[in-house]
Amino acid sequence: MAKKVAVIMGSDSDFGVMKNAIARLKEFGIEYQVRVLSAHRTPAQAEAFAKSAEAEGFGVIIAAAGKAAHLGGVIAAYTTLPVIGVPIKTSMMGGLDSLLSMVQMPKGIPVATVAVDGADNAAILAAQILAVSDLQLSEKLRAFKVKMEQDVLDKDVQIQKEVSTL
Amino acid sequence: MAKKVAVIMGSDSDFGVMKNAIARLKEFGIEYQVRVLSAHRTPAQAEAFAKSAEAEGFGVIIAAAGKAAHLGGVIAAYTTLPVIGVPIKTSMMGGLDSLLSMVQMPKGIPVATVAVDGADNAAILAAQILAVSDLQLSEKLRAFKVKMEQDVLDKDVQIQKEVSTL
Amino acid sequence: MAKKVAVIMGSDSDFGVMKNAIARLKEFGIEYQVRVLSAHRTPAQAEAFAKSAEAEGFGVIIAAAGKAAHLGGVIAAYTTLPVIGVPIKTSMMGGLDSLLSMVQMPKGIPVATVAVDGADNAAILAAQILAVSDLQLSEKLRAFKVKMEQDVLDKDVQIQKEVSTL
Amino acid sequence: MAKKVAVIMGSDSDFGVMKNAIARLKEFGIEYQVRVLSAHRTPAQAEAFAKSAEAEGFGVIIAAAGKAAHLGGVIAAYTTLPVIGVPIKTSMMGGLDSLLSMVQMPKGIPVATVAVDGADNAAILAAQILAVSDLQLSEKLRAFKVKMEQDVLDKDVQIQKEVSTL
Amino acid sequence: MAKKVAVIMGSDSDFGVMKNAIARLKEFGIEYQVRVLSAHRTPAQAEAFAKSAEAEGFGVIIAAAGKAAHLGGVIAAYTTLPVIGVPIKTSMMGGLDSLLSMVQMPKGIPVATVAVDGADNAAILAAQILAVSDLQLSEKLRAFKVKMEQDVLDKDVQIQKEVSTL
Amino acid sequence: MAKKVAVIMGSDSDFGVMKNAIARLKEFGIEYQVRVLSAHRTPAQAEAFAKSAEAEGFGVIIAAAGKAAHLGGVIAAYTTLPVIGVPIKTSMMGGLDSLLSMVQMPKGIPVATVAVDGADNAAILAAQILAVSDLQLSEKLRAFKVKMEQDVLDKDVQIQKEVSTL
Amino acid sequence: MAKKVAVIMGSDSDFGVMKNAIARLKEFGIEYQVRVLSAHRTPAQAEAFAKSAEAEGFGVIIAAAGKAAHLGGVIAAYTTLPVIGVPIKTSMMGGLDSLLSMVQMPKGIPVATVAVDGADNAAILAAQILAVSDLQLSEKLRAFKVKMEQDVLDKDVQIQKEVSTL
Amino acid sequence: MAKKVAVIMGSDSDFGVMKNAIARLKEFGIEYQVRVLSAHRTPAQAEAFAKSAEAEGFGVIIAAAGKAAHLGGVIAAYTTLPVIGVPIKTSMMGGLDSLLSMVQMPKGIPVATVAVDGADNAAILAAQILAVSDLQLSEKLRAFKVKMEQDVLDKDVQIQKEVSTL
Repeated sequence: MAKKVAVIMGSDSDFGVMKNAIARLKEFGIEYQVRVLSAHRTPAQAEAFAKSAEAEGFGVIIAAAGKAAHLGGVIAAYTTLPVIGVPIKTSMMGGLDSLLSMVQMPKGIPVATVAVDGADNAAILAAQILAVSDLQLSEKLRAFKVKMEQDVLDKDVQIQKEVSTL
Repeated sequence: MAKKVAVIMGSDSDFGVMKNAIARLKEFGIEYQVRVLSAHRTPAQAEAFAKSAEAEGFGVIIAAAGKAAHLGGVIAAYTTLPVIGVPIKTSMMGGLDSLLSMVQMPKGIPVATVAVDGADNAAILAAQILAVSDLQLSEKLRAFKVKMEQDVLDKDVQIQKEVSTL
Repeated sequence: MAKKVAVIMGSDSDFGVMKNAIARLKEFGIEYQVRVLSAHRTPAQAEAFAKSAEAEGFGVIIAAAGKAAHLGGVIAAYTTLPVIGVPIKTSMMGGLDSLLSMVQMPKGIPVATVAVDGADNAAILAAQILAVSDLQLSEKLRAFKVKMEQDVLDKDVQIQKEVSTL
Repeated sequence: MAKKVAVIMGSDSDFGVMKNAIARLKEFGIEYQVRVLSAHRTPAQAEAFAKSAEAEGFGVIIAAAGKAAHLGGVIAAYTTLPVIGVPIKTSMMGGLDSLLSMVQMPKGIPVATVAVDGADNAAILAAQILAVSDLQLSEKLRAFKVKMEQDVLDKDVQIQKEVSTL
Repeated sequence: MAKKVAVIMGSDSDFGVMKNAIARLKEFGIEYQVRVLSAHRTPAQAEAFAKSAEAEGFGVIIAAAGKAAHLGGVIAAYTTLPVIGVPIKTSMMGGLDSLLSMVQMPKGIPVATVAVDGADNAAILAAQILAVSDLQLSEKLRAFKVKMEQDVLDKDVQIQKEVSTL
Repeated sequence: MAKKVAVIMGSDSDFGVMKNAIARLKEFGIEYQVRVLSAHRTPAQAEAFAKSAEAEGFGVIIAAAGKAAHLGGVIAAYTTLPVIGVPIKTSMMGGLDSLLSMVQMPKGIPVATVAVDGADNAAILAAQILAVSDLQLSEKLRAFKVKMEQDVLDKDVQIQKEVSTL
Repeated sequence: MAKKVAVIMGSDSDFGVMKNAIARLKEFGIEYQVRVLSAHRTPAQAEAFAKSAEAEGFGVIIAAAGKAAHLGGVIAAYTTLPVIGVPIKTSMMGGLDSLLSMVQMPKGIPVATVAVDGADNAAILAAQILAVSDLQLSEKLRAFKVKMEQDVLDKDVQIQKEVSTL
Repeated sequence: MAKKVAVIMGSDSDFGVMKNAIARLKEFGIEYQVRVLSAHRTPAQAEAFAKSAEAEGFGVIIAAAGKAAHLGGVIAAYTTLPVIGVPIKTSMMGGLDSLLSMVQMPKGIPVATVAVDGADNAAILAAQILAVSDLQLSEKLRAFKVKMEQDVLDKDVQIQKEVSTL
């Protein structure tokens, strides 16, 4: 049976950004669960979630958090599933605090970090990970890449048209 | 058949750091190939490698590069395999240039970035990704986690002994 | 025949900034072509463009991109024409990510980087490059410099007037 | 009975820096325990330690960690004791990663952060916290302040003497 | 008698942020005094306040300041009470100037620094410090932690409901 | 005869910030001249101004500029008068570019740099410099300090009143 | 007659880095002149050099400087020749001060900035600029690109050999 | 009678850097006094020094400090003499902490900040300030500028010679 993706966030205020991950997972037909779990305010629930994630059928966990963004690391401490980190933008240096708190993980416990507010890319990365053993999903990713390419080509034509009228 | 991991680097000067990734893959019994491929000096070879990687049996690609570290992104442009980026430390702000050049990827093309010089974690992450569909590897990762835990527990005992003599 | 300048951008969202480059090239009477080409979403088109740029009569390529701004580097990998990079401002530290991704190019493949959002200066630099072998354009640049000087002198007079009424 | 101070560190490699905290606690006659506890490699032990710390007679916990320095936050999630964080210097921007990972804690779970490698100050802060309800310790802190002052006055005399010979 | 908390700020413009600290202290039933004291414009008053703070019944001092945020350090120079620093956000790199000016205190004079604009956490930390010798306050902090946990659990339920309708 | 202060700026867009310097100089009764002079667009005028400044009766030069803020350095190259630099805030990291371009002057040619957008402080510093040999101005500065102190004391009273009603 | 390249530096201490530019220009058979010219200590000579550079047969000027690195901007103020800036590494944040002082030039006066200590790339960029109207030099650049590619291919083979023995 | 310059430093460890200021003052024949005064460890002495500085015949105060470098600000709070700040380099981001703590002073209390470790420039700036009303010193500064120029010209000749032998 196909693995699910968990989309967890440290605060419900991250939901606006993380909707982009959910929409993309839906588009790929990947089953997902969304949770608000705080590394600091609900550590027991975060731990429980992480420990049972593999048994619950999850294949990848996406963890979004801002500032001292520990959620990804806390989850990764309790599972061997790949954990993708989404640093949420803050008003402190544009999210550099969130980014460094996520990506600079110590030896032994990686968090696969994407760009600040990179919820969409986190979902695509999750799909790529699942696709390693899922030919159908792999096919969808290839189609998605073709579509992205076509979108840029369309915009190229459109901008050239716009420029010709300058 | 088990998927392989590619370890590519933008320069042979990255080899000292990337040896840690190779050692870890070996320890996990994961087959790997090591290549020097430059996004800027051998773009055609990088492209050819990326395009054929899936067909060649690779499941994950680890790309290490420093400064304007484009290698991960260039590879990710040509494949839907998950690409893990290792930003190599530079003398310019401790590798912040490499880190931002890797992690801040635009929509649609993620690079799973680990810590600056995080070669070991890149290998562990690669193993975690392959383990999503490989129970035996998953078991090895759990054993590795137990061993890491034991190492820290041993050091805890040792430091306490050392402190008691202060 | 006079060389053309290519103005390429990684996303159509960069067009608002890059219009300033186009306007300046027009003012100097330099022929230009504008393209949306993504290092990551349309790598084949970017490569094709770069490879044929010299033969197509381009003398300079201006490449604008934001975040992990690889476009300039990818183009520079496939041509020996001078490539000017315009780092586009992002919400991450005011464009420091774009700047470092562009300017910190490895040995052998320079990208001539201008200020964050410095589209106008990119166009002026392109003109300066073409003017090395184009006396008429060189003359226009000198006239432009005189005009800039006069603009500042006018503002100097105006501010002094304004101050005298304080 | 007087409260104890716990000095915990994420890795035994932090011991060189944290010895300064131990020496200072000793000087103040404060009882302490030293532990190596990793937020990521021994999360269960870290949790167990934090949960029982108050009952074990600890009044303050000093937590030292580097890079994505989560240890202070993980401990603070499981106790209401004051937690002091010591960001350990790294080669990535001089410890800015450790500092931001510690100090930028979300609402509800503070970590009292001191300077990068500020082990000594962490111990003094711990003493100040315990001294709020310990007159004898408070007296020692005042004496310590006087001694510090005298040290600077002595150096002032010494430098003036040295300068007079220039 | 229970110790009081002082909430001092370098400028009345910090009051909007520091209101959050006052509200939290009120909620915990901690007596407080609020003062505007400038390290640079009213140094004599700041000094007088710091010197008498312990005798006046204060147990902790919260000092908020922005830019070259010296207030915490100046207060800490004249008292052995624990001083908590709140770096106020500025338009210069999101408050990095305030943060570094507060946290990087020299040996001997710690300032317990919380996140940029972390007024609420400063109040919680102050409560934690007083609670070391105040069982009733300690109980309130545990109840607060439970309430925070419940708030996140409620949001978790709510977001899951919202997601199910997407 | 009393020395004058020159207030020069690299662009008329700096005038909004620099008005604060002018108002302060006026308040102190210091004669001033305001000029728009660009290090890069009117280098000849900037040089001419700097060379004749001492003879023209100026005692201090305040130079404001943003981005690669060279104006202060260019002026300082041509005069031995003290030059005060005001880094103008930019959208690039909150003016860090302007600040570093001003303050990091090479050996031999100092620029006395104040805070980003610190026009008011630049004027006060200019007054302090002139006051070294002007007892009347020195007296005004002492009165100004007393007034500043009183302003803070008034705000202290006001905030305490406001807090008492919370 | 072929244009020359000027290699100027703000201090003779930059010579160690700039030797790499000289060696590369020599390799390409480009005539060059090397000068120590300080924007701040020899502004008259810098100005004189810039004003006469075009008439003296220079086609491109490479300017290297550290810290508040104004040299490129000062030269660009007096000529319409393309100016390439090499920010020299400093102990202040790895050369970020030099980089920002060079690249963030105001509208109208671009400096084509390369990487920190990027002397070699500056020379290659200079060659690319001259090659726009010099077919022979253009041919050399293509050959250089092929050689660079071959060097990487050789290292690729070598590393693979080395890895096979691990 | 000629005014003196005070060179104060927060720690005797700053003496190695500040010797350069002393040597320069000596060269200019300016009388000076050197003191170790800590804003945090000897605040009373720092205050006493600042309050009496003008009466003691000082015209300018140079204050050097590292990390949370408050010394300049603390002195400036108690005097209207111009205060020059020298941020001492630290291992935390190359002295950015010291720089921001000094330069970002609030409205009303400027500190004239020079480059990180810029002791020599601080002394030159002090001389420039005193020279506003001291024609003889002004003459010395002009001679110093000529000598600096000659030094660069000599190095220019020397490097050209060295290059000719390459």
